[in-house]
Amino acid sequence: MSVTAAQGFTAAGVRAGIKASGNHDLALVRNDGPRKVASGVFTSNRFQAAPVVWSIDALADGSLDAVVLNSGGANACTGADGLADARAMAETTASALGTTAQQIAVCSTGLIGVRLPMDAVRGGIAEAAAALSSEGGADAAVAIMTTDTVSKQASTTSESGWTVGGMAKGAGMLAPALATMLVVITTDADLTPAEADTALRAATRLTFDRTDSDGCMSTNDTVLLLSNGASGVAPDLEEFTHALTGVCASLARQLLADAEGASHDIAVTVVNAVTEDEALDVARCVTRSNLFKTAIFGNDPNWGRVLASAGTSKATFDPDQVSVSFNGVTVFDTGALGEDRSLVDLTPREVRVEIDLAAGPASATVWTNDLTYDYVKENAEYSS
Amino acid sequence: MSVTAAQGFTAAGVRAGIKASGNHDLALVRNDGPRKVASGVFTSNRFQAAPVVWSIDALADGSLDAVVLNSGGANACTGADGLADARAMAETTASALGTTAQQIAVCSTGLIGVRLPMDAVRGGIAEAAAALSSEGGADAAVAIMTTDTVSKQASTTSESGWTVGGMAKGAGMLAPALATMLVVITTDADLTPAEADTALRAATRLTFDRTDSDGCMSTNDTVLLLSNGASGVAPDLEEFTHALTGVCASLARQLLADAEGASHDIAVTVVNAVTEDEALDVARCVTRSNLFKTAIFGNDPNWGRVLASAGTSKATFDPDQVSVSFNGVTVFDTGALGEDRSLVDLTPREVRVEIDLAAGPASATVWTNDLTYDYVKENAEYSS
Repeated sequence: MSVTAAQGFTAAGVRAGIKASGNHDLALVRNDGPRKVASGVFTSNRFQAAPVVWSIDALADGSLDAVVLNSGGANACTGADGLADARAMAETTASALGTTAQQIAVCSTGLIGVRLPMDAVRGGIAEAAAALSSEGGADAAVAIMTTDTVSKQASTTSESGWTVGGMAKGAGMLAPALATMLVVITTDADLTPAEADTALRAATRLTFDRTDSDGCMSTNDTVLLLSNGASGVAPDLEEFTHALTGVCASLARQLLADAEGASHDIAVTVVNAVTEDEALDVARCVTRSNLFKTAIFGNDPNWGRVLASAGTSKATFDPDQVSVSFNGVTVFDTGALGEDRSLVDLTPREVRVEIDLAAGPASATVWTNDLTYDYVKENAEYSS
Repeated sequence: MSVTAAQGFTAAGVRAGIKASGNHDLALVRNDGPRKVASGVFTSNRFQAAPVVWSIDALADGSLDAVVLNSGGANACTGADGLADARAMAETTASALGTTAQQIAVCSTGLIGVRLPMDAVRGGIAEAAAALSSEGGADAAVAIMTTDTVSKQASTTSESGWTVGGMAKGAGMLAPALATMLVVITTDADLTPAEADTALRAATRLTFDRTDSDGCMSTNDTVLLLSNGASGVAPDLEEFTHALTGVCASLARQLLADAEGASHDIAVTVVNAVTEDEALDVARCVTRSNLFKTAIFGNDPNWGRVLASAGTSKATFDPDQVSVSFNGVTVFDTGALGEDRSLVDLTPREVRVEIDLAAGPASATVWTNDLTYDYVKENAEYSS
């Protein structure tokens, strides 16, 4: 499990005093080599947080020695001072680990618009650097939690002898006043920077990019892959990408399952679309419909709201040929009323909605949550 | 007030027995001439309800004698049978009024996917035709209500001697299991079909098109303008468009004010954008953010959520130059913390958020509601 599952990675999670609660709030993940290959994908939000700006630059050479992460403050919308703080986090970490700041990625999560308590951060970095251990993955996963109720970890080992492991926190921007999905994945497979980048983009495209808890895009979202080749095995890239996608999918599902206020995890699958992009477009129209999401909260297989939201898409289809099923029951069949909606049981947490466009060969799935009283409560009652 | 404010229009609203509640549920609005000019704008949803399909066709010649409207059933996603029902409504109305079906527009609102009780509808049409009166506007406005708590009417009279009046129901797709904003506007100004169409499109673009209660697009949305020239005055088109826009704006605000579950009406204004389209794009990104909408419900001037949603727009701006104000208090000023957020009072129902992009000369406003417990309750607890 976690970021220390693969050979040659150490990690730590400590209580630096950034969070008022006194909980764990600073994590380090170090790549002990031999290779220091790294790749990352970041939020496309125009208001990128300072640590995102820093990390994109640090990753330009495809190499990282370590990642420093904090909870308790997002360091977003903090201007030039915030950027200086992100740089200071990298420099302090580099100094503790005997490398250069350019080899350090920085991730922050917590309130937007608040400066970090840098004395506490510096102390935490020193403490975490001293605590780095091949057993430290679980502590690191705890230290990046904000309103997460459980830490999120996943790993898989190939028969060829390499391992991929990772940790994650958050759920889109679902958490109250918080703004981050952070993911760090490590592997001892031997990859070139280009291979790491190709695999990471392919894996996130099918997993995190299709996890949309509440349609809100964070300023801090970061997914990092560190690779050191310590297994001595250069993997088949297709096999590695498949394994990496599995780890990402597991972490993404763990994020949804812990999304605050949610009572259902919903997979909206669009089949028989002309292209995958059109399938995705229809799925996103449905997963962003508040009326659809409240219906699922009410255990209501409301195909009318599915159609009304699908109807806002530009995808190619004939409305008279469309079918909709909930958990396998086709309640709207080829443009007309189908099976009796009372046959649908929406009480389990996992719900599967399938929309058949009868237009082509492509399909796509987007995961989301339902819209509940608790979502409103969490996001209305807490100031940020 | 209402659709009978202008000369030469009669209307009626009756209890046809379509609604289980026994409330008023069928309305007629008749243009008594001399001219029978008409224009309409309709939902862009791909799943157009049968009455929308019918009415678009009926309007192809720019002329209508009357509009028949029912609540208690949307006649949407009802296939060929539903289209036959819409046609039968037009034929029954035409027969009662001594005209042709092609001169009748049809509007329906209520549950999606349910056939209308056509015997009740036919009886109601006969009763309404017999009750048509120049005093009938208020009854008609009541008969199109679904979960509206008040009827919506507006009118204005020009110094040149012509009047514009209208009625409306609904609020986007906010109402539980319901799916319609219906608007009928009448005027005794003397307009050509082209003038009526130009004025209606200009007015709706700035009003109903910028009212977005919950981001959900209906299958039945219809706005009709009937013009008969009974005042004998051919208006200045700019003056008429201005008056029509005022009536539309009043009706749109009445819809928002009665939106179910909402506790705030929120105007998001984007100023100093490069183009009006870009201003609109940023405003829509913000008004569709559930995190922003829950924050307003919580009386929280959460500029971080405004920025995070604005940051998903493709509009041209430099994040370091952006400012955000709530009710006139600039809490985020030129890329940095501004006035103290505690100066903002969000307890009044009306909230004004202004986003200054510092990028150009254009601006736009979109109105929305907050996201509340009651919104979730209304839309989760009622099946459809």
